Amino acid sequence: MTIDRAFRAPPALAPGARVAVIAPASAFDRASFESGLALVGARYDVRYRPAIFERHRYLAGSDNRRHEELAEALLDPAIRGVFCARGGYGATRLLTRLAAIGPVAPKPLVGFSDITALHLWLQSRGVMSIHGPVLTQLGLLPEATRQRLFQLLESAAPAPALTASDTYVSGVAEGPLLGGTLSVVTRLLGTPYLPSLEGAILLLEDVGERPYRLDRMWTHLELAGVFRQVRGIALGSFTNCEEKNADYSAADVLCELAQATGLPCVAGFPVGHGAVNEPVPLGARARLDAVARTLTFLEPAVAS
Amino acid sequence: MTIDRAFRAPPALAPGARVAVIAPASAFDRASFESGLALVGARYDVRYRPAIFERHRYLAGSDNRRHEELAEALLDPAIRGVFCARGGYGATRLLTRLAAIGPVAPKPLVGFSDITALHLWLQSRGVMSIHGPVLTQLGLLPEATRQRLFQLLESAAPAPALTASDTYVSGVAEGPLLGGTLSVVTRLLGTPYLPSLEGAILLLEDVGERPYRLDRMWTHLELAGVFRQVRGIALGSFTNCEEKNADYSAADVLCELAQATGLPCVAGFPVGHGAVNEPVPLGARARLDAVARTLTFLEPAVAS
Repeated sequence: MTIDRAFRAPPALAPGARVAVIAPASAFDRASFESGLALVGARYDVRYRPAIFERHRYLAGSDNRRHEELAEALLDPAIRGVFCARGGYGATRLLTRLAAIGPVAPKPLVGFSDITALHLWLQSRGVMSIHGPVLTQLGLLPEATRQRLFQLLESAAPAPALTASDTYVSGVAEGPLLGGTLSVVTRLLGTPYLPSLEGAILLLEDVGERPYRLDRMWTHLELAGVFRQVRGIALGSFTNCEEKNADYSAADVLCELAQATGLPCVAGFPVGHGAVNEPVPLGARARLDAVARTLTFLEPAVAS
Repeated sequence: MTIDRAFRAPPALAPGARVAVIAPASAFDRASFESGLALVGARYDVRYRPAIFERHRYLAGSDNRRHEELAEALLDPAIRGVFCARGGYGATRLLTRLAAIGPVAPKPLVGFSDITALHLWLQSRGVMSIHGPVLTQLGLLPEATRQRLFQLLESAAPAPALTASDTYVSGVAEGPLLGGTLSVVTRLLGTPYLPSLEGAILLLEDVGERPYRLDRMWTHLELAGVFRQVRGIALGSFTNCEEKNADYSAADVLCELAQATGLPCVAGFPVGHGAVNEPVPLGARARLDAVARTLTFLEPAVAS
């Protein structure tokens, strides 16, 4: 059965709007943080908690600290948008606590990688969000990417289409764009925090996963029935995913797996852990054209 | 709700019984294969397909080849037991095909690591199996471990208890022993191939997973509700799981996660990817005593 759901778009940001920076996952480099902060601070009124710099092993402080910071950013009506400092790991540790907070008014949340877990949780509540650069990465990206991000956050016009390099399976599909980092998407299978993927265009990308691990994760999606639910697959970058001295590539493995699904699949969108990480609206209707190798957005990321 | 299930024990092997060696996952080293074959061949009538040596990328030949070999081993009534050549990766790729084969008469199947997927599938069909050495590892293990394996396969007396090194959470629990390699157990969450873990003693071990990855997998079990179902946790070896230059260990992370469950938990059982890999019966009722640090088996691995 196909469900044509509409996800709710959060209100658009205006220049000068108050936004929060949070670190719900791993600790981060201070200089990269300051660099990103300056770029976002030139456009919005940025706030963050001094405790954001805390560290606990691989985490940006305790679960309590990260949860309180996240819950405040989501619940405080004066905060109009949320930027994540870094991915890494740690967001899934907060989901049980998040489930206990009441209704959340939609507001744009930006991040990727481990932040995929928060995106999926927001989409399980019917709300759109933005798969895009983390704050500590902003200074390393082209000016055009930052402008695209501000456009997504502020404009009620859909984002410009993205173009990719390789058609794995031909065809055309339309549906809400859902997904993110493969290793994080699959960590929500069998839990209450994954939205229904019925009718979706599934976005997948990853970093530092050897081909057999990509295969294992993809096979997990298959065994969980995901490829009977989604309508098409948009692959972003798979960075540092090659096996040393192998006579096959990560792309060979992904292409074979994609072909087994029979779903329209395009690879090489400039989204993810590569040198380019173009922001895209999650939950927004998109059209994947595996002939033209384009991903066209049919809805804006925010509402005017 | 607690379900006190009984898993069916397969018939005991007798010396001289016909057994099959299969390679449902990764390709393997030929010399290690011959070494293990000589040891098993000295006790049983061992058969294997010549095509077992095929290779396709990280797999021991195509899915078709591996599935046919596995299905024959499970379905041929002349084959009384099954030894797996190696883990690695590839068993989950066969589960959809396996679901299509009819009823399978219980017979002992031995392996671990990626073979965890086959064990869990067998247990989802109510059948016991043996978490124990793969064939290519047999020559490297102490003679006592091989004798323990033959005892499990042949004797209607329960296996001798195992002792571990560390109590993470005190208490005593009893239930069928289920689980295996953490990274493989979690790859079946949200799929039809995982048996109910209600009332189980959960066995977990792994190799080559950094602490944050162990955390991510453990958190996946938690989000899927597994720690509300199982009664106790028996941890085997976590080999090559340390982060370089970290001020915390994999054990620190696992201990903290175990304590958050509140379930009796003992760590350091000689099971898994370490230098010792004692065979244990999956699906057999076991008693985890987190005071005495013992895992006592209340049922044999086979029926007389």
